[in-house]
Amino acid sequence: MTTVVFFPGDGIGPEICAAARRVLETVQEQAELPLTVVEGLVGGAALDAHDDPLPPESLELARRADAVLLGAVGGPKWDGLPPAKRPEQGLLRLRKELELFANLRPAQIFPQLRAASPLRPELIEGVDILVVRELTGDIYFGEPRGAEVVQGKRRAWNTMVYDEDEIRRIAEVAFRAARDRRRRLCSVDKANVLETTRLWREVVTEVGRDYPDVELQHLYVDNAAMQLVRAPAQFDVILTGNMFGDILSDEASQLTGSIGMLASASLGQGRGMYEPIHGSAPDIAGQDRANPLATILSVAMMLRHSLDQAPLAERIEAAVLRVLDQGLRTADIAAAGEPVVGTQAMGEAVAAAL
Amino acid sequence: MTTVVFFPGDGIGPEICAAARRVLETVQEQAELPLTVVEGLVGGAALDAHDDPLPPESLELARRADAVLLGAVGGPKWDGLPPAKRPEQGLLRLRKELELFANLRPAQIFPQLRAASPLRPELIEGVDILVVRELTGDIYFGEPRGAEVVQGKRRAWNTMVYDEDEIRRIAEVAFRAARDRRRRLCSVDKANVLETTRLWREVVTEVGRDYPDVELQHLYVDNAAMQLVRAPAQFDVILTGNMFGDILSDEASQLTGSIGMLASASLGQGRGMYEPIHGSAPDIAGQDRANPLATILSVAMMLRHSLDQAPLAERIEAAVLRVLDQGLRTADIAAAGEPVVGTQAMGEAVAAAL
Ligand SMILES: CC(C)[C@H](C(=O)O)[C@@H](O)C(=O)O
Ligand SMILES: CC(C)[C@H](C(=O)O)[C@@H](O)C(=O)O
Repeated sequence: MTTVVFFPGDGIGPEICAAARRVLETVQEQAELPLTVVEGLVGGAALDAHDDPLPPESLELARRADAVLLGAVGGPKWDGLPPAKRPEQGLLRLRKELELFANLRPAQIFPQLRAASPLRPELIEGVDILVVRELTGDIYFGEPRGAEVVQGKRRAWNTMVYDEDEIRRIAEVAFRAARDRRRRLCSVDKANVLETTRLWREVVTEVGRDYPDVELQHLYVDNAAMQLVRAPAQFDVILTGNMFGDILSDEASQLTGSIGMLASASLGQGRGMYEPIHGSAPDIAGQDRANPLATILSVAMMLRHSLDQAPLAERIEAAVLRVLDQGLRTADIAAAGEPVVGTQAMGEAVAAAL
Repeated sequence: MTTVVFFPGDGIGPEICAAARRVLETVQEQAELPLTVVEGLVGGAALDAHDDPLPPESLELARRADAVLLGAVGGPKWDGLPPAKRPEQGLLRLRKELELFANLRPAQIFPQLRAASPLRPELIEGVDILVVRELTGDIYFGEPRGAEVVQGKRRAWNTMVYDEDEIRRIAEVAFRAARDRRRRLCSVDKANVLETTRLWREVVTEVGRDYPDVELQHLYVDNAAMQLVRAPAQFDVILTGNMFGDILSDEASQLTGSIGMLASASLGQGRGMYEPIHGSAPDIAGQDRANPLATILSVAMMLRHSLDQAPLAERIEAAVLRVLDQGLRTADIAAAGEPVVGTQAMGEAVAAAL
């Protein structure tokens, strides 16, 4: 029996996960897929209940599951807490404990939502980017890290660090992904300043020798941030570290104008974790206003990458496109004056379109 | 006698500096300003001549000068060299040795060039951002840093580090700048993950108490990268560290579509350094195709911030707007089909418009 764990998390998390669960259960019935869905707590929700953003029982649930679906974590309620007690720690520890080192973030244009992009129409034509972000290393997890007071003066530090094995395995993921796409890989670093990313460039270049059919290019991170805005259609796969990937993947998603539509996968050796790339949007939580489509598309990614059910993934993706074609829009993707549906209604519409 | 040192550097550096020097000498004559311009070598040019990207005599020239004007450094010719022997090291060491801790990078829209922005016209209306980037700390200079091989495995690391004095002095610069502008300051960090930037947020908040008339906001760097694309007009002053500032200031400049127009200042306690924000563009070097206007506007910034000649700065800025109004365009800012002038002709035109 296949098991999937849902961690709705905070803010709009519970609403979008409910809609996504409805869709998953619909395809499951249709396909007579033997699948158990269980729910657990992470983030602020887990802090409130167990004073721990990733309680042992949640980690255990995740370990035993075949795949994890996460809503979103965080909110102003927990902002004042000490570092180790913040909702984000639940997410970061999940990534680290499950060794989810490969974060795949597609940024593509939905033809129906082209007008939502902040870029001029001629620039977004054909934009279809996959950001491959390393997720368990870099300055996010590097030691030493900390803060101290020396002679009355506060000081704080973090360590950016990579070893060649960490770089090699994420590079392999990116090159393989490029092979399935348009065979172009842009690796992003700051090799003109940082030793860490000089090693990054070296190892990526070495891995590239095994993929002579993939065109490899290196860009400095500042230039990459510019090129994304200037001419995003030039990119196929972008490979980068955890910190630069955090920044560039968000920039890339914003270019599409449809952050509420974008899903992501975090993969390792075993089970994967799937989440919308948007945050917990505490300002609209509980108001049935959030867009559940990114979470629904995350379910599709889960079916494809973790549950070996590519045809069901495609069925969900087609259903999402169909509701867009029908003109259904949540507030975030509606053009001025367009009628708007709520979170639940959007979920129902996708289920009905299946 | 006031002395200014020009470091033309590499690629298009010599051409754009020649045009800027022509403009400076014209206002100097007109205003009978006692001013000596000397030239020196940094970057690849200095490597070629002295095997050192910042030879002692160049550093000495800079120390004795009242202001420094830099063209651009770097190029593929020097890419294979070991870290300490790269053109960029000349620039980084100049910043560090002269203690130029405050990098001011304005990103504004020139009305004449509005069509060059990659953003939809309604989004760039009124964009006028000043990025204040810390320039002598952070992971750029943090120790320890290095690379090693342990049991046959390569590993490399860098240290992100700030103390409260470094943060306080750059925050002061940013708050004062905001006071002279629209009184809004957005400080960018990754306080949900990095201890270093948690201290950043803490100290910036403390400094803010002395500027109750300036509205202070904090954004995570990933969100800032998105907001810049989504709605750039929301920003007035953006304050951030060296690494995030490198990325965000380039992203912000690209939004204007006129990178060839943007100047920057690097300030400390004493003399300042001024440079165009664009790079050395080796692909068009020596072809009289580069846009000298960013360098010319850097001369204006130099007159204002280091030489106490605000009226002359304004005269140059007005002359630049005039040549744009006359329809003069270098290749980088010309719309399709528009006639194009060369680097030298553009410099002459500005001098004539003075
Ligand atoms: C919430 C935060 C810790 C996280 C990150 O920085 O990785 C988020 O921004 C993301 O990109 O998933
Ligand atoms: C050339 C490089 C070292 C430099 C930097 O990263 O600071 C450049 O990108 C800049 O922003 O001035």
